[in-house]
Amino acid sequence: MQRDWWKWGDPNEIKHINDYPKLKTLVEDRWKTSLREEFFPPKKFELPQLSEKRKEQIKDIFAVLDPKKISFKDDDRLFVSLGKSYYDVIRIFNGGGFISPDVVITPTSHDEIQYILKQASDNNIAIIPFGGGTNVVGALSLDNLSGKSDIKCTLDLRKYKKLIQIDEEHLTATFEAGIFGPELEKILQAKGYTLGHFPQSFEYSTLGGWIVTRGAGQESTYYGKIEDLVEHIKVATPIGTLESNTFSHDASGINVLPLFVGSEGTLGVVTEISVKIKKLPKNYRWIVALFPDFQSGSQYLQELTQAGVKPSVVRLSDANETNLFSKMSSSEEQPGFVNDLKKEAQKLILQWKNLTAPCVLIMRFPQSNISVSSQVIYAKDLVAKHKGMLAPATIGDKWAENRFKLPYLRDTLVEHAIYIDTMETLVRWKDVQKMHQALTKELNKCAAFHKNKGIFLAHISHVYPNAACMYFTLITPMLKGREIEQWQDLKDVVTNTILQNNGSISHHHSVGLDHQKWYKKYLDNLAMDLLQSIKNKLDPKGIMNPGKLFS
Amino acid sequence: MQRDWWKWGDPNEIKHINDYPKLKTLVEDRWKTSLREEFFPPKKFELPQLSEKRKEQIKDIFAVLDPKKISFKDDDRLFVSLGKSYYDVIRIFNGGGFISPDVVITPTSHDEIQYILKQASDNNIAIIPFGGGTNVVGALSLDNLSGKSDIKCTLDLRKYKKLIQIDEEHLTATFEAGIFGPELEKILQAKGYTLGHFPQSFEYSTLGGWIVTRGAGQESTYYGKIEDLVEHIKVATPIGTLESNTFSHDASGINVLPLFVGSEGTLGVVTEISVKIKKLPKNYRWIVALFPDFQSGSQYLQELTQAGVKPSVVRLSDANETNLFSKMSSSEEQPGFVNDLKKEAQKLILQWKNLTAPCVLIMRFPQSNISVSSQVIYAKDLVAKHKGMLAPATIGDKWAENRFKLPYLRDTLVEHAIYIDTMETLVRWKDVQKMHQALTKELNKCAAFHKNKGIFLAHISHVYPNAACMYFTLITPMLKGREIEQWQDLKDVVTNTILQNNGSISHHHSVGLDHQKWYKKYLDNLAMDLLQSIKNKLDPKGIMNPGKLFS
Repeated sequence: MQRDWWKWGDPNEIKHINDYPKLKTLVEDRWKTSLREEFFPPKKFELPQLSEKRKEQIKDIFAVLDPKKISFKDDDRLFVSLGKSYYDVIRIFNGGGFISPDVVITPTSHDEIQYILKQASDNNIAIIPFGGGTNVVGALSLDNLSGKSDIKCTLDLRKYKKLIQIDEEHLTATFEAGIFGPELEKILQAKGYTLGHFPQSFEYSTLGGWIVTRGAGQESTYYGKIEDLVEHIKVATPIGTLESNTFSHDASGINVLPLFVGSEGTLGVVTEISVKIKKLPKNYRWIVALFPDFQSGSQYLQELTQAGVKPSVVRLSDANETNLFSKMSSSEEQPGFVNDLKKEAQKLILQWKNLTAPCVLIMRFPQSNISVSSQVIYAKDLVAKHKGMLAPATIGDKWAENRFKLPYLRDTLVEHAIYIDTMETLVRWKDVQKMHQALTKELNKCAAFHKNKGIFLAHISHVYPNAACMYFTLITPMLKGREIEQWQDLKDVVTNTILQNNGSISHHHSVGLDHQKWYKKYLDNLAMDLLQSIKNKLDPKGIMNPGKLFS
Repeated sequence: MQRDWWKWGDPNEIKHINDYPKLKTLVEDRWKTSLREEFFPPKKFELPQLSEKRKEQIKDIFAVLDPKKISFKDDDRLFVSLGKSYYDVIRIFNGGGFISPDVVITPTSHDEIQYILKQASDNNIAIIPFGGGTNVVGALSLDNLSGKSDIKCTLDLRKYKKLIQIDEEHLTATFEAGIFGPELEKILQAKGYTLGHFPQSFEYSTLGGWIVTRGAGQESTYYGKIEDLVEHIKVATPIGTLESNTFSHDASGINVLPLFVGSEGTLGVVTEISVKIKKLPKNYRWIVALFPDFQSGSQYLQELTQAGVKPSVVRLSDANETNLFSKMSSSEEQPGFVNDLKKEAQKLILQWKNLTAPCVLIMRFPQSNISVSSQVIYAKDLVAKHKGMLAPATIGDKWAENRFKLPYLRDTLVEHAIYIDTMETLVRWKDVQKMHQALTKELNKCAAFHKNKGIFLAHISHVYPNAACMYFTLITPMLKGREIEQWQDLKDVVTNTILQNNGSISHHHSVGLDHQKWYKKYLDNLAMDLLQSIKNKLDPKGIMNPGKLFS
């Protein structure tokens, strides 16, 4: 399968809006509009070319590499120019407004990467490490590099992806950073193991990318975020290679490992990664429940996680999200979520009169040698206390079948001139309801959202004893000719509201270029200063993903 | 209760060797010697005094502080001169060979600490942060400060210990760094919570000390090491105050929090600490088992932890340790371990002929709202597969009663001219047995250990899917007049053997001064260089606990 550089994943997976008749009707009714019918092929891009002399100079700088690993071709440069945010997609449709690298290098070993960084640093060439290219907050953007170095080089790590070792005796596995989720899990699962890291981008994101963006998977409430899953790393930096302490949990001084988690390619390239693996679950237990409102469901999850219960998948949808997905429900149309929910909800409503705006919760419990029955029983018993009702667990399987499909729906909507973006934050339990209300209120005032005509969906996606990750989806018609201002307006409204309600910049999308103006205010001044000194030490010429995290 | 500065804890707890008649007989028989009868009161120390003029200068430098918080008194200076290692104790008995600070300052607020560090940095005064003073690897030693600054000031944090906030809604609690274990747990348990951090030093160590030494408690296999329990910190450094990210698990760039875990006072003083608390268990389930040899028990624990079972207390004693403690067993004499083990073992031996050198395992499972029965059942069922037998669980309660008492026995032995030291390491499962054999072999060749007359005890104290913490106790008669060489010889033999068998420098004791020569070789060169640049940034004059971690 060949990916189109301007689309999410498998080109065969993207559907026409006519394949979602209920969704199409819903959108057209709501906005009294006819959706544009035709697909938008991206305009032809003609990239500026380096002179032949300059190309020869670059080849000379990296003379030790096989010349085939150095590309100046437009196709190679376009593929790595952007991530997969709405802002990225809209610029592709608009035919420009982004910057492509001058050259793409495709290393296949740690030593090559180390060599490239050394040479780049000596010759003032900016390096942008590229894993799967799925980042949605501009972490791969070249927009902010200008003036820092005259050559922009993307390091395409997709061929740097070998298994180095599975250590079954110690439940660790060591991979090269560029391995994609499916390849990694295939290798592990063939031997009965899993990493348990399944972000929505799973199919097209890389192990190295997960680490440097501090990612989370859909099952991280149980398996842990990526920072919990790493035992040891090797890192190439412009001034040389370093390794973290042998063990993640010892008392041998300060471990440098956590410095590279969330470093977004600014300090070097994390190359060889040892992760903690687990035995593959033998089966799963699902719980699906309906709550009369978002607050009840949220309070249920707070009590549950504080009691020590650890589901892997946790997804509590607010009333809007529950309603939208139940309206779209049919065996053909459900876009990665619940199928028979509406039918079930209607049955339940008959039994239960308060359920006017139900919120659905789905949870999954992986079970291996140790029974999770006591957790499942506790979780089920607790539902009634929070005014909820159990619903059929089959809905969970439907979710699992479609868990990685939503980005394709995003592409479909954008193709038909609908703005759709997602944002997320980690927020203390006491602020969950306030955050939900504040965002609803602010968006309803926002012209870029078509005020209360916009669709605002929220769900809780990860839970901790002190906090929850809230995940937001915004859908509204594109403002023609003002697509980028619309995107920026909505990003501003949502992020400002998040920070006003004590949410974090991000729980798993990372900072990137899109969050940078908030990040600078969010981070403690001296902490920023300290991080800058670390940057200066490892990357004295400032060639590593310039303009990210640091000013 | 007033602690004697040269002893472990409550002076009333330390017993005479005659209170352990079985132990005394065992030791005297083994070494064909009579133990010295009298207690050794430490010799009188006369500390060098600063001139009155110099004292006035120091008072002027810290003029903003209440003068009562600045002490030049011998008693105050002696109390904070050392930690509680064998090397520390032996120097006290020997009447010297250590360095005391010139001045002791006792701050009671973050702002005071920040002020002190700023003034100290401006005036080139070395600062040694002192929490509970229980470190056993020289982290509090002033031996290596010389030439770096002319005044040595210990920061006694024992009065900086208030609760700042318990946030019951989010299961976090914020304390000042100098709070001792019992006070912290008393505050939490009064409201139904626990931190779950119970190192052997619990009664006399502090929250801040746990963090900067990267400590573990006896129940950390379940609750997590201290690095897993911290959500947020505030830090005073010579160049100012910084705070970590709001949440420990988000994606808002690089979090500086982990830099201070294990920093051993070299970067600043961690002052305000938010920890993750848990609901107090409602009850405990114990499992006690006997294995025919250490390897079987070790393989059992490896399989158990890799299956996802998480006991809090885990203690698998080798045959020597099991045997020694069973020999000492009697209701009066058991020193913090098993009481009726010998009786039980004898009964079991009758049933089971292979049990010539049994190894006892005790495990505890805290149980709150969620039943741990499935874990307990799995753990019990697995015992037979590894050739073990279940034993009465009452032994567990006996252990718990005496869990913090062993340091007193150490003091008793030293008083009666017996060398006793403990060391520990984190080691991969495949190296556990090799490590045990190699240490036994090397010690049996070592004159300082009286070769095979020395007593070498080992147990596994913490388990991870990839590794175990092995904890060693060495006992042998003191070499009179050569006590320090003996200590150093044994430290060298054990630590060299640990590193040759791929163990970590330390799992929870920290690096300190005692491990420094190995630490420099153990740590990656560039990682060390990076850490040094962090040190230079936060502590440009090098006043913070000079000579530790960094050269």
